[in-house]
Amino acid sequence: MLNFHYSIPTEIFFGKNQIEVLGTEIKKYGSKVLLTYGGGSIKKTGLYDKIVQILKDQNIEFRELGGIDPNPRIDSVREGIQICKDSGIDFILAVGGGSTIDCSKAIAAGYFYDGDPWDLVIGKATIKKALPLGTVLTIAATGSEMDSAAVITNPETNQKLVFGHPAMAPEFSILDPTYTFTVPAKQTAAGVVDIMSHTFESYFTRTKGAYLPDRLAEAILKTCINYGQLAVTEPENYEARANLMWASSLAINGLLGYGKDAIWSVHPIEHELSAYYDITHGIGLAILTPPWMEYVLDDERVDKFVEYGVNVWDIDQNQDKYAIAHEAIDKTKQYFASLGMPLTLKEVGIGEDNLEKMAKAAVDHNNGTVGNFKPLSYEDVLNIYKKAL
Amino acid sequence: MLNFHYSIPTEIFFGKNQIEVLGTEIKKYGSKVLLTYGGGSIKKTGLYDKIVQILKDQNIEFRELGGIDPNPRIDSVREGIQICKDSGIDFILAVGGGSTIDCSKAIAAGYFYDGDPWDLVIGKATIKKALPLGTVLTIAATGSEMDSAAVITNPETNQKLVFGHPAMAPEFSILDPTYTFTVPAKQTAAGVVDIMSHTFESYFTRTKGAYLPDRLAEAILKTCINYGQLAVTEPENYEARANLMWASSLAINGLLGYGKDAIWSVHPIEHELSAYYDITHGIGLAILTPPWMEYVLDDERVDKFVEYGVNVWDIDQNQDKYAIAHEAIDKTKQYFASLGMPLTLKEVGIGEDNLEKMAKAAVDHNNGTVGNFKPLSYEDVLNIYKKAL
Repeated sequence: MLNFHYSIPTEIFFGKNQIEVLGTEIKKYGSKVLLTYGGGSIKKTGLYDKIVQILKDQNIEFRELGGIDPNPRIDSVREGIQICKDSGIDFILAVGGGSTIDCSKAIAAGYFYDGDPWDLVIGKATIKKALPLGTVLTIAATGSEMDSAAVITNPETNQKLVFGHPAMAPEFSILDPTYTFTVPAKQTAAGVVDIMSHTFESYFTRTKGAYLPDRLAEAILKTCINYGQLAVTEPENYEARANLMWASSLAINGLLGYGKDAIWSVHPIEHELSAYYDITHGIGLAILTPPWMEYVLDDERVDKFVEYGVNVWDIDQNQDKYAIAHEAIDKTKQYFASLGMPLTLKEVGIGEDNLEKMAKAAVDHNNGTVGNFKPLSYEDVLNIYKKAL
Repeated sequence: MLNFHYSIPTEIFFGKNQIEVLGTEIKKYGSKVLLTYGGGSIKKTGLYDKIVQILKDQNIEFRELGGIDPNPRIDSVREGIQICKDSGIDFILAVGGGSTIDCSKAIAAGYFYDGDPWDLVIGKATIKKALPLGTVLTIAATGSEMDSAAVITNPETNQKLVFGHPAMAPEFSILDPTYTFTVPAKQTAAGVVDIMSHTFESYFTRTKGAYLPDRLAEAILKTCINYGQLAVTEPENYEARANLMWASSLAINGLLGYGKDAIWSVHPIEHELSAYYDITHGIGLAILTPPWMEYVLDDERVDKFVEYGVNVWDIDQNQDKYAIAHEAIDKTKQYFASLGMPLTLKEVGIGEDNLEKMAKAAVDHNNGTVGNFKPLSYEDVLNIYKKAL
């Protein structure tokens, strides 16, 4: 187990009606709020009205930034920063999923930087502080509600990049599983894949002796497998929604990575896909994960796949290692299929056109090599895209 | 899954040489330190000298309170508070295990209370704030390094009671597994039992649908089982010591209990044992846990024992439920025995003399009923003590 510094300061208010704490929590940090949200589903569900009512009842002034896109754009960040500066905003309340929260984190950090916020995303400038942020989560997927990172897209440069800073972690997040009852089947399924992928990124490493973190990761994976289909077929199943929602936060808040040396592999490859084609992130992950697993499977890594197969999929351990590994990968693929996920690039209308450009971008955005479970070169990434066709 | 409020503010610096951060961390909170420790093992190992050197190098003034007993007494708390008041202490640094840390938490809270600190332990007065506290952990057991509770003994009244407040959680804890290399076999084993018992207290509940927390608990239990004997037989095995150390913190920092309704059962029964006989807490837990399991096993609770047996001990699930449950309990008992733990009260020299008094005290200290997996009356507790003879 490697050395680590554990710090997960975000407070979580989990469960039914936890929105009750919203006013009190906001007032701990600010008095003039920027309320951010996405395409308007919160208006359909009534959550928007409920939150506006709470803000009014508690005499909390607020401005709004709605219409934040999936794969949020740097333009929305710029717009949000301008509103904050114009209106003396001192707290951001993000209501939505990962896109809205990520955009809000970027606004929070960009507020204190005088140049263009894209500089912070590409690391041209450093983040020093950020406005305090709270979130009300409406989909279980990215885990952005409990971590300090954000993914922002720049359509002009076809770049979709991750950046982060401890100051960008939300002060609090309200996780009411009933708010995810209305998430459509496809988005629910994509969210489950995203949670599993975050877990895989921490799980598939070559760090020795990190036994406990690996068992924690398996707990998250089993939870996704146990409840994913149920959440798709019974969208108002509280138990399924609750377990998935909590899994989404724990998968990426740091817990699974402590003690391990995990440089992510599949996420950077997928980010190029959704930067070029604007597909749903979880769908890209479902398409790319099994080919990546097959591609990196070799003598040096087979034991990790055996561990995965035996502990997560209950595969009989008295078999040939490679048989177990292939069965584990196959079960992963079947599971994604059972959630209704496409499993090839062709199914989502992506052909060979940009594979080389995307492979080049993936390695360029990661200092020449993607991931460290098996470090991937340009050719490796290209081969994985081709396997996914 | 039940509603919960997640808040685990303690920062952890985990791994070799993390003591390097000590000076910088202390200075974030204070400038005049009370250094607390136990029987002097830190003087033998050189840790005391190392810490004193760091404090001197960083020009941090300090006073000392050494000699804190296992099952720490209210007298030490009173003494510590007096030193703090006399010397203008603004930070407490606890170096040791659960006893030293618990005593330090009580000093930290008692500092701001004008009356006798025992009032805070028995709930006669309420805690409002506490001095900031940091810890350097030297044994994996109580998890006190990452939670907000403390257990204090009053020998005059034969009371050993738990109390706590969010302000009592350490600001930071330094967990260097090499500091546990010198922990004797018996204490190492007792620590493993303590970690497992904390996990059982959260795991064995009747809350439905808390699937994820239960899988996390199993991760901790598997870690204890995987490394317990190794740490006993190879005290300098870093991997074993590291996994157990991290397990000790995660078992009781709140993570396993979120979403569940867990009122503890075996700990309150054991506390009376160590209040009357001053035995090592983990040994008391090893003696009492299997009889408690057998005693509470019935139709309403058998499924939880099946879950435990199948998931933690890999018992074949295609058997009669009670067969699985009894095998699981038996394996637990055998495992404690394999660690060198005594399994009966007689083995530690305890007879029938005080069983009735202790049973009465256990229910009296818990508002008439112990635990809620199966709520235990006076007769129940007495029967469990008798089964443990």
